Amino acid sequence: MKKRFLAIAIASGLASPFAANADATVYGIVHMTVGMVDTGTGGTDNWQVDSVASRLGFKGSEDLGNGMTATYKLEYGVDPDAGGPGQVSGGTTGLSRRNQYVGLKGGFGEVRVGRHDTPLKMSQGKFGQFNDTRGDIRNVGAADLRVDNAIAYINKFTDEFTFAIALVPGEGDGVTAGDGPADTISAAGMYASGPLYVALAMDTYDDTGNSGLNASGMGVLVDSTTRLTVTYKMGKMQFGFLMENQTGITGQPDLDGMGFSFGMGMGKNKAKFQYLTGEIDNNGGDTTNLSVGYDWGLSKRTTAYVQYTTSETEVGSTTTAEMDFMGVGLKHKF
Amino acid sequence: MKKRFLAIAIASGLASPFAANADATVYGIVHMTVGMVDTGTGGTDNWQVDSVASRLGFKGSEDLGNGMTATYKLEYGVDPDAGGPGQVSGGTTGLSRRNQYVGLKGGFGEVRVGRHDTPLKMSQGKFGQFNDTRGDIRNVGAADLRVDNAIAYINKFTDEFTFAIALVPGEGDGVTAGDGPADTISAAGMYASGPLYVALAMDTYDDTGNSGLNASGMGVLVDSTTRLTVTYKMGKMQFGFLMENQTGITGQPDLDGMGFSFGMGMGKNKAKFQYLTGEIDNNGGDTTNLSVGYDWGLSKRTTAYVQYTTSETEVGSTTTAEMDFMGVGLKHKF
Amino acid sequence: MKKRFLAIAIASGLASPFAANADATVYGIVHMTVGMVDTGTGGTDNWQVDSVASRLGFKGSEDLGNGMTATYKLEYGVDPDAGGPGQVSGGTTGLSRRNQYVGLKGGFGEVRVGRHDTPLKMSQGKFGQFNDTRGDIRNVGAADLRVDNAIAYINKFTDEFTFAIALVPGEGDGVTAGDGPADTISAAGMYASGPLYVALAMDTYDDTGNSGLNASGMGVLVDSTTRLTVTYKMGKMQFGFLMENQTGITGQPDLDGMGFSFGMGMGKNKAKFQYLTGEIDNNGGDTTNLSVGYDWGLSKRTTAYVQYTTSETEVGSTTTAEMDFMGVGLKHKF
Repeated sequence: MKKRFLAIAIASGLASPFAANADATVYGIVHMTVGMVDTGTGGTDNWQVDSVASRLGFKGSEDLGNGMTATYKLEYGVDPDAGGPGQVSGGTTGLSRRNQYVGLKGGFGEVRVGRHDTPLKMSQGKFGQFNDTRGDIRNVGAADLRVDNAIAYINKFTDEFTFAIALVPGEGDGVTAGDGPADTISAAGMYASGPLYVALAMDTYDDTGNSGLNASGMGVLVDSTTRLTVTYKMGKMQFGFLMENQTGITGQPDLDGMGFSFGMGMGKNKAKFQYLTGEIDNNGGDTTNLSVGYDWGLSKRTTAYVQYTTSETEVGSTTTAEMDFMGVGLKHKF
Repeated sequence: MKKRFLAIAIASGLASPFAANADATVYGIVHMTVGMVDTGTGGTDNWQVDSVASRLGFKGSEDLGNGMTATYKLEYGVDPDAGGPGQVSGGTTGLSRRNQYVGLKGGFGEVRVGRHDTPLKMSQGKFGQFNDTRGDIRNVGAADLRVDNAIAYINKFTDEFTFAIALVPGEGDGVTAGDGPADTISAAGMYASGPLYVALAMDTYDDTGNSGLNASGMGVLVDSTTRLTVTYKMGKMQFGFLMENQTGITGQPDLDGMGFSFGMGMGKNKAKFQYLTGEIDNNGGDTTNLSVGYDWGLSKRTTAYVQYTTSETEVGSTTTAEMDFMGVGLKHKF
Repeated sequence: MKKRFLAIAIASGLASPFAANADATVYGIVHMTVGMVDTGTGGTDNWQVDSVASRLGFKGSEDLGNGMTATYKLEYGVDPDAGGPGQVSGGTTGLSRRNQYVGLKGGFGEVRVGRHDTPLKMSQGKFGQFNDTRGDIRNVGAADLRVDNAIAYINKFTDEFTFAIALVPGEGDGVTAGDGPADTISAAGMYASGPLYVALAMDTYDDTGNSGLNASGMGVLVDSTTRLTVTYKMGKMQFGFLMENQTGITGQPDLDGMGFSFGMGMGKNKAKFQYLTGEIDNNGGDTTNLSVGYDWGLSKRTTAYVQYTTSETEVGSTTTAEMDFMGVGLKHKF
């Protein structure tokens, strides 16, 4: 059969139809928006073209026999808009590292070594209706880390229950950060059954020094993060709830975050809503972020949408930052 | 039929022949020269190995039905010669961003959002016989921009006539540059019929600040650029003519550019010639660039060539810069 | 036959099975280790996750007819661990340039132009049992260069004998480095017959200035390098021997290097050992590097292993640097 297949391939006029390594999948997302941004700092409305976490990746796997599989991923953030306003030809590469690892999968689960989303970040599941945009949970200070030096373990113990943990050496030789194999730990339990998804996750950070992992999105150094995520499907509707607590290091305040999301399918399209709030406990700051949008599903891989996001930060009763965004987006996965 | 095809594929010993995403095309050019460069500044002839705009890209499209198509491209400049003279292992990435966008195509034409050649740059068509090399039109100050934040629209209105326009927000919030959706505009009309190609194009730049788009190649800030391109085929010969005027901002001189190109096919090979001149109107400067070359078409995708380019810049009657290049090149497209 | 093949492909539900350019092969290695590193400078044992020369490349070739082939490669180092200890999301690209060239192959051999391993580096053949790791020959100062601006020629003159030479212009215009076509030259003769492999190689460097190519791994500027490599297979065992001499520039000492390697196949697995030593001739310094390891061949492309490497540098009789590494690794080629 092999010989015959090759004969067909050659007859088809292609010099080497399978020269591309059978194992390497090239994939990615190009996601751009055009819209008006008003940052409320005295400037007028500002038209912007932006890339929203566009990416390019290379991944694959190999069956090793005996129920074992080798896996890998090399994913990069790309930026068709890099280099700031009005950048002429040249500029930076626009590239940044996303999840990049080699792994082994078997009956025991999967171990991945490299750069990886923390299990806490993974545990958000499908809560986000405005992922990566100005309406992402990251914008209210939620812990959403991707870390180098990760030793991650992921296992689906039952059809319903998945557990993931990542150990992160501080690599600091005891001086600026820990030097053990697990100076930072992130773990998550995720339960999915029918319409219900519940996840509970926790991070404890290497806070002996400048690892940077414990720098929360709100300018406070934290010891640990706990997050609960719940999503529930009712017909074509999905409700999402997320709650997060971060414990400040000695002498620093705690942080609280909360979010509601809602999506309603309308054929291939979707109406969506999300409200997020992040708070520094001693009334030192309070950020809210509200988004509404409508998606047109042009195909499984291509979506056009409109989005409005408004965000405000108050310290005490003084507004310190405002942002309004109104725009259209086009997102294509390949 | 599907089952049978898979059976053949499996029988051929390939684990997953189509694991590579059917939609992602990996393409590029590796183009290198070896030659002698004499910059005429007292130095002797200098042997150089150079990369000439080598590139690597990822592109694809998806049929959305109803005559609509989603398109994308992520193209990078690569540099097998990066890092300057004698650079040892390591060095920079050599990567830079070229055209990178997501688009929608339909009966209305195509809209692309991201980083893109200006329509004025696109309008040069096949004028250039020495593209990207030391004989490129860029070397006499011609406007040849690739811009971030582009919202480009391209449509072939008739079999003969194509129109393209790009709107470029200044993203400057009214402070250092414009904040509207079209602070910089580039537009081009391109007419092709039989042996004749005529294109007229115009840029008007966001010159309220530091956008950089209005910095001409000759050190003068300009308001706008107008370019006329004509090419004509006569049997195996092609004649090209290009004329460009740039209007300086208040208090700055205008710039003029002109070019002639000629190519003559000889079987798979080609003899070629190009003469370019750029001038600052108040006699502040004058650059000429002359190239002759011969291509050996080793295949449709692979070309070997010899090239001689000589360039001179005069201010008043004083020669301020000279450059001579004599070399061989190898260009492979994949 | 062509029509029929396409029919099968279409029937299989794939929009464009060969959209990926038939000529572009995406390949690479993801190679990570987890281990303890003790640098002996007063710090404690330090757990680290490291990438070991992981890479991603794009390569291909085109049959030009008449026995000629065009070749190209664009290979990048990638780093799933870039950005130093505890690096949060973002960080550097982790990318660096490896071999990148365009080439022409025919009855005369192959010429490659771009960035390339020196023939001296190529001549090490399969000596190394611990390539790229902390047990690599580079760690005792062995010349192992990858250079920009290379014009390389490689030819297999007989079934047994291969010769390679690279000419490297200094590109310095006679001021800080040479300006000829061959300021640095690297050449190697490689003989392989049955179980025996013998290679003799020599570099002479452009040492007129700051080309950097003559900066040896031990902080001494050198004029030239000579290396002899021998490997011999006896059943499932392989013995390797490598000897290197570097001549210092006027007023600087010579350097000597030597290495023994040993590997013993055990089914798909392998036990391995390597001892390296590098010495500055006037007793100014002396580095030793000893590694033992065991590989589990999970497949042809995937290897898991354990490794222990200990390294020490003495100046006179004073130990100036120590390093111990004990870890596990996973290496997957695609």
